[in-house]
Amino acid sequence: MTPMTGMTSSEPFGARLRRAMDERGPLCVGIDPHASLLAEWGLNDDVAGLERFSRTVVEAVADRVAVLKPQVAFFERFGSRGIAVLEKTVQEARAAGTLVVTDAKRGDIGSTMAGYAEAFLHKDAPLFSDALTVSPYLGYGSLSPAVALARESGAGLFVLALTSNPEGPEVQHAIRADGRTVAATMLAHLAAENAGEEPLGSFGAVVGATVGDLSSYDLAINGPLLAPGVGAQGATPADLPKVFGPALRNVVPNVSRGVLRHGPDTGALRTAAERFAEEIQVAVAGA
Amino acid sequence: MTPMTGMTSSEPFGARLRRAMDERGPLCVGIDPHASLLAEWGLNDDVAGLERFSRTVVEAVADRVAVLKPQVAFFERFGSRGIAVLEKTVQEARAAGTLVVTDAKRGDIGSTMAGYAEAFLHKDAPLFSDALTVSPYLGYGSLSPAVALARESGAGLFVLALTSNPEGPEVQHAIRADGRTVAATMLAHLAAENAGEEPLGSFGAVVGATVGDLSSYDLAINGPLLAPGVGAQGATPADLPKVFGPALRNVVPNVSRGVLRHGPDTGALRTAAERFAEEIQVAVAGA
Repeated sequence: MTPMTGMTSSEPFGARLRRAMDERGPLCVGIDPHASLLAEWGLNDDVAGLERFSRTVVEAVADRVAVLKPQVAFFERFGSRGIAVLEKTVQEARAAGTLVVTDAKRGDIGSTMAGYAEAFLHKDAPLFSDALTVSPYLGYGSLSPAVALARESGAGLFVLALTSNPEGPEVQHAIRADGRTVAATMLAHLAAENAGEEPLGSFGAVVGATVGDLSSYDLAINGPLLAPGVGAQGATPADLPKVFGPALRNVVPNVSRGVLRHGPDTGALRTAAERFAEEIQVAVAGA
Repeated sequence: MTPMTGMTSSEPFGARLRRAMDERGPLCVGIDPHASLLAEWGLNDDVAGLERFSRTVVEAVADRVAVLKPQVAFFERFGSRGIAVLEKTVQEARAAGTLVVTDAKRGDIGSTMAGYAEAFLHKDAPLFSDALTVSPYLGYGSLSPAVALARESGAGLFVLALTSNPEGPEVQHAIRADGRTVAATMLAHLAAENAGEEPLGSFGAVVGATVGDLSSYDLAINGPLLAPGVGAQGATPADLPKVFGPALRNVVPNVSRGVLRHGPDTGALRTAAERFAEEIQVAVAGA
């Protein structure tokens, strides 16, 4: 990998995402090929099943949803052969016109963080994605090599901030010396990162759609808010205005099982995705 | 992947690690094939260079150090072909008699966390390792699928707790409603996880060797403490007793660059690793 080869300037992720959300509706469909879904689709829990599943989702919806989000864990469980399927999935989805947010929740420091950034955010990398999810247990500043490479590549990040799983508050609600929570601190860093960007910054936060009352958090980070938890996990599109308030226009709701359970029929997957996209657009427009 | 195939009961990781530390000295050598080290070794920054580097480290020291710790980011930057090299590295290192702690810092929730656990902690997985590093931004409880599978496979975990990078305190020193810091909370969870285990629990913490004053932390978790930062990063073996106090006997100091910079000559790598192992043993014995 020669760092500078093929490096061209690109329109920033935030601008591309804004346009995709406006044109296609702000929906992110997860590609979560876990064992139970493979079984429901009549596929084997092996690399061939993984590949068939992922390709089916891409074929069904990549030409019409704003974002696809492959969940790396479900590929990594098959080792290098699973990662090879992920490479194809990411490349085919991008070629079909959707933005790919690779959900890897990577996080490390220094040259190691730079290694993860190169894996997913370098233009020449086989896993090059429009954006990557990252985890800030080592502090927001530890992510800076990924921020830098994302800027260079026209890519983006989604930093875990405030998640809706019951174990999350243990870390995310803890309070720093300045009186802010860890989650609020991440949001503040992202707001600074995105300052002045038009029409939307490229550095987003992961904020659960079922997290409850968000009114004490400043969600005006001028960047996208990736919101898992819509559909099978509990929140409905109609709930979004109440949960996100004035930040609603920058929310990218993620639906995984709510769409995927309609497979393997591509028509049914498409219909389910279109229904969610429409319901979300209606909810946003009416707010 | 059929979850139950090949699942056999194994001696727990903690017991195997205790024995390896006692017999070989408590040293963990990192396998960190980043671009600058590949260049120093006269290797290309490509998959062939990666493979040569990793194999050389394994050949030089896997028959004599307690633990080898491959850093996944440096393999992942080459995509699936890099992960294929990681598979070989992990398998060859284990076959040569060392314990492999795969440094991936994975972290997610529910079935996704279970996916990562299967990738690294399932006996049949191509990346099956003796232990895995994990990141708890989503709360310690979110790691439970990995704890469960590690117990089943006789493997272990190292949970990020208190790291020595300057950005770490932002999250790790934040204070929870019960008055404890996030880092202390992780240590307390691990102590509970390891309660009653003999001779050593399998659920360790990552605690930086250069983190400064640790006296306010209860490091008596009855599990191993993986301590990066020895050698090139600043701490010397002689510093360890002062830093870790009574927990010293469970500390696994990690040296990466301090050994790797002596390559590619296998004899020089071996000598460097043996010197560190001896210095650490002397420091532990004298404390």
